[in-house]
Amino acid sequence: MSVTASQIAELVKGKLIGDGSVVVNGVASLKDAKPDQASFVGNKRYTHVLDESKAKVVLICKDMENDDPRGRTFIVCDNVDYAFSQVIMIFAKPAPKPVPGVHPSAVVAPSAKLGKDVSIGANAVIEENAEIGDGSSIGAGCYIGHEVKIGAKCTIYPNVTIMYRCIVGNLCIIHPGVVIGGDGFGFVPGPNGLMKVPQTGIVRIGDDVEIGANTTIDRARFDQTWIKDNVKIDNQVMVAHNVVVGESSILVAQSGIAGSATLGRGVILAAKAGVNGHITLGDGVQVAGTSGVAKSVPAGAIVLGTPAESQREFMARYTLPSRMEKALARIKALEEKVAELSK
Amino acid sequence: MSVTASQIAELVKGKLIGDGSVVVNGVASLKDAKPDQASFVGNKRYTHVLDESKAKVVLICKDMENDDPRGRTFIVCDNVDYAFSQVIMIFAKPAPKPVPGVHPSAVVAPSAKLGKDVSIGANAVIEENAEIGDGSSIGAGCYIGHEVKIGAKCTIYPNVTIMYRCIVGNLCIIHPGVVIGGDGFGFVPGPNGLMKVPQTGIVRIGDDVEIGANTTIDRARFDQTWIKDNVKIDNQVMVAHNVVVGESSILVAQSGIAGSATLGRGVILAAKAGVNGHITLGDGVQVAGTSGVAKSVPAGAIVLGTPAESQREFMARYTLPSRMEKALARIKALEEKVAELSK
Amino acid sequence: MSVTASQIAELVKGKLIGDGSVVVNGVASLKDAKPDQASFVGNKRYTHVLDESKAKVVLICKDMENDDPRGRTFIVCDNVDYAFSQVIMIFAKPAPKPVPGVHPSAVVAPSAKLGKDVSIGANAVIEENAEIGDGSSIGAGCYIGHEVKIGAKCTIYPNVTIMYRCIVGNLCIIHPGVVIGGDGFGFVPGPNGLMKVPQTGIVRIGDDVEIGANTTIDRARFDQTWIKDNVKIDNQVMVAHNVVVGESSILVAQSGIAGSATLGRGVILAAKAGVNGHITLGDGVQVAGTSGVAKSVPAGAIVLGTPAESQREFMARYTLPSRMEKALARIKALEEKVAELSK
Repeated sequence: MSVTASQIAELVKGKLIGDGSVVVNGVASLKDAKPDQASFVGNKRYTHVLDESKAKVVLICKDMENDDPRGRTFIVCDNVDYAFSQVIMIFAKPAPKPVPGVHPSAVVAPSAKLGKDVSIGANAVIEENAEIGDGSSIGAGCYIGHEVKIGAKCTIYPNVTIMYRCIVGNLCIIHPGVVIGGDGFGFVPGPNGLMKVPQTGIVRIGDDVEIGANTTIDRARFDQTWIKDNVKIDNQVMVAHNVVVGESSILVAQSGIAGSATLGRGVILAAKAGVNGHITLGDGVQVAGTSGVAKSVPAGAIVLGTPAESQREFMARYTLPSRMEKALARIKALEEKVAELSK
Repeated sequence: MSVTASQIAELVKGKLIGDGSVVVNGVASLKDAKPDQASFVGNKRYTHVLDESKAKVVLICKDMENDDPRGRTFIVCDNVDYAFSQVIMIFAKPAPKPVPGVHPSAVVAPSAKLGKDVSIGANAVIEENAEIGDGSSIGAGCYIGHEVKIGAKCTIYPNVTIMYRCIVGNLCIIHPGVVIGGDGFGFVPGPNGLMKVPQTGIVRIGDDVEIGANTTIDRARFDQTWIKDNVKIDNQVMVAHNVVVGESSILVAQSGIAGSATLGRGVILAAKAGVNGHITLGDGVQVAGTSGVAKSVPAGAIVLGTPAESQREFMARYTLPSRMEKALARIKALEEKVAELSK
Repeated sequence: MSVTASQIAELVKGKLIGDGSVVVNGVASLKDAKPDQASFVGNKRYTHVLDESKAKVVLICKDMENDDPRGRTFIVCDNVDYAFSQVIMIFAKPAPKPVPGVHPSAVVAPSAKLGKDVSIGANAVIEENAEIGDGSSIGAGCYIGHEVKIGAKCTIYPNVTIMYRCIVGNLCIIHPGVVIGGDGFGFVPGPNGLMKVPQTGIVRIGDDVEIGANTTIDRARFDQTWIKDNVKIDNQVMVAHNVVVGESSILVAQSGIAGSATLGRGVILAAKAGVNGHITLGDGVQVAGTSGVAKSVPAGAIVLGTPAESQREFMARYTLPSRMEKALARIKALEEKVAELSK
């Protein structure tokens, strides 16, 4: 594949600055790019990396529009990340497509209902009364439990486990090793030690949800654990029973949400963040990586640290060592003056 | 299903306050309950949620016994959580039962010994000389390694991996994606880089243990990694080689225990807590969520923070910013007085 | 099996101190050892445990050479850990060997290329154009995607998922539940919520790499996520897209590396450590357990805490409570003196 800078600018609806006839044969990061590869800068603060790049064609963000191209061809984009994705796709070898139909080694219960153009991979197991919507694919080795409902156009990658009665919407992508509908974690002390609290609810996943590898989402004690539409979940995330995650929220890798917590729309949990049980994070709350949120957070707030607090509170804490040094210096000065006065 | 408040009170052996003839058709949380659904309050501090609930029948704890029911029917319970579980079970659709026998697609070694009423799911693999006790079920896609011994009445959910020679007791529940008996993590520097330290021991799981989805428990370097009876482990927990976890301990989601650490009876690791290698946590130790325990902790202690310390120590640290503000105010006042005195 | 202390000394090329004719029938930790079991002390600070041990034969490190053996036989070793591993192997029952050939229940695409002496386990799935090198074994229930290349003498344990086009070197060991090549996590805001950023690259794993159970390594956005030779990865580690991990680095359990971070040679991430995206950790950097590294770290540095800082900075922070107490005492003394002076 070869395209010109002009063709790229047209594809991404960007503004061309410089020579549109430069030929591009691939994409790379600024650091690794050869002269015939296109690259991108999404943020003005990476300008110094641009200076050292060999890339002749670079997609840039609006606020770099007036920068000196130094012989390069610039393509100014509203959303560089999205635009560069389009360029990547010109050169990317497409992912293998699931083979339609049921692989002969798969075990599909007679009562399971498969929609049109469904693909069931090798050694997958579909239990009684499960339903798979039109155009969805179930990867090799997956287990789809009794009465599970999966919507249309979903991609379930290999070795995923979805336990009985859970519900997955349309257009979802579920990566390998995900477990949906394991029992919530609940025990009460009894005469012979800890006794299990039955977990009789389900997990309900909305439309257009993506779930990363080896993430686990537990079934509710009763009613449902609910991941709403357009939520994006990374790898190794843990969502406990009866949690509700609002639309378009982002749960980054290794984050976790304890039982019955409620997240609003557009919440972001950065990597390794944790959220306590039974609390509420309002719409648009952002939790910094590794933070542990102990109590409810109002809409729009940004919190960090453990227990998580506001940026102002965090900075007051973070700067304590230098403030202590200054305080000690002032104390020492006072001690000297007081000693002098006492003479 | 419909039951009356009186029938519920009888079932849970609770004390009825108010109208026993109210008909209940289901259960829900206080917030979501319709008038014909039973709900519960396990803790007096949730009284305000009760005020706004539509539930006509509410299970309450002892110390709320004298609260005004405001037209509701109260059922006073010794253990509300446990009592409410019994009510949930009235209405819950039972989980699908494993089908007894060996699914034709399963691969069971001729030397494997299967007890009475064992269920082996589709595409499960049981290796040579493995033993499965009476009434246990092995889910679809599970791998049960050579010479593994699984006791009676265990439920092993789909896609679990138990490696060679590991031992699981009776009445255990193991959720999907769990890995038992992967190699412990050990390496020594050698002439060509890091060299593997052989891991020749096993994992031994006691009776009545529950293990959450995608948790991993590593085999010992030699001898055994040991999870004792009645331990309850949540999802994505990591237990390293040669760890010992005492009876009825609770390991909450995403917690981890490094190699050769020993936990006593009834220890609680809250979510995301970490325990250093080669240390001991005494009976009943409680570790707060996200805490990192660096050194041994005596029985009964509650620790938090990283490195974990006592609540008193933690509070001394946590309140530093406000104490700093006060200290600075006192320093400023002193400076002013000293300046005045110096005049 | 029975061996004498002399035979052990010869095997491990250690220096014998005491009676070489003592017979050893097994190995154990110092604490658990019976008199006829060999044990070891790798570090002089565990001398007190040695005092209470029943072991008659003990492998010790060089700097204990002149300690009083008190009737024991000592074997002085350059590398006690490695030497003791050799002793363990005398008594260890060997792990079961994979059966060469393709299990009849496995599903191997006609275009897949299998090397000599390859073992494909029961119900494994090998997709079109995948290549498995000489002497490698693929465990039961594994999924090996389209065009995946696996080198020679690899051990892939059961229920591993390796997605399309990823590359694994020679002599690698991959534990159960690992997922290699799930999509990297990338989304951009669009008119209908978050839109997926295509992930078109691969994961490349070098030679002699070990990967622990349920670890996940994501495919690159483009180009590759790269784990270099001799890297050792523990369980439940998360490596995001476009990360590069340098030779002989060690990633301990539940650690995580965000997108496009670069780790040099011999980096150590202790348990639960996290590394921010787009930063660089120089050769030999060591990150303490649970630490969150927010910015790049120069070669050789040891960092801890969140955000991670040097040991000196960390200690200045860690000792704040006691320094605060002392500062308050000095303030109080000053206040008293100033009050006196003011009279």
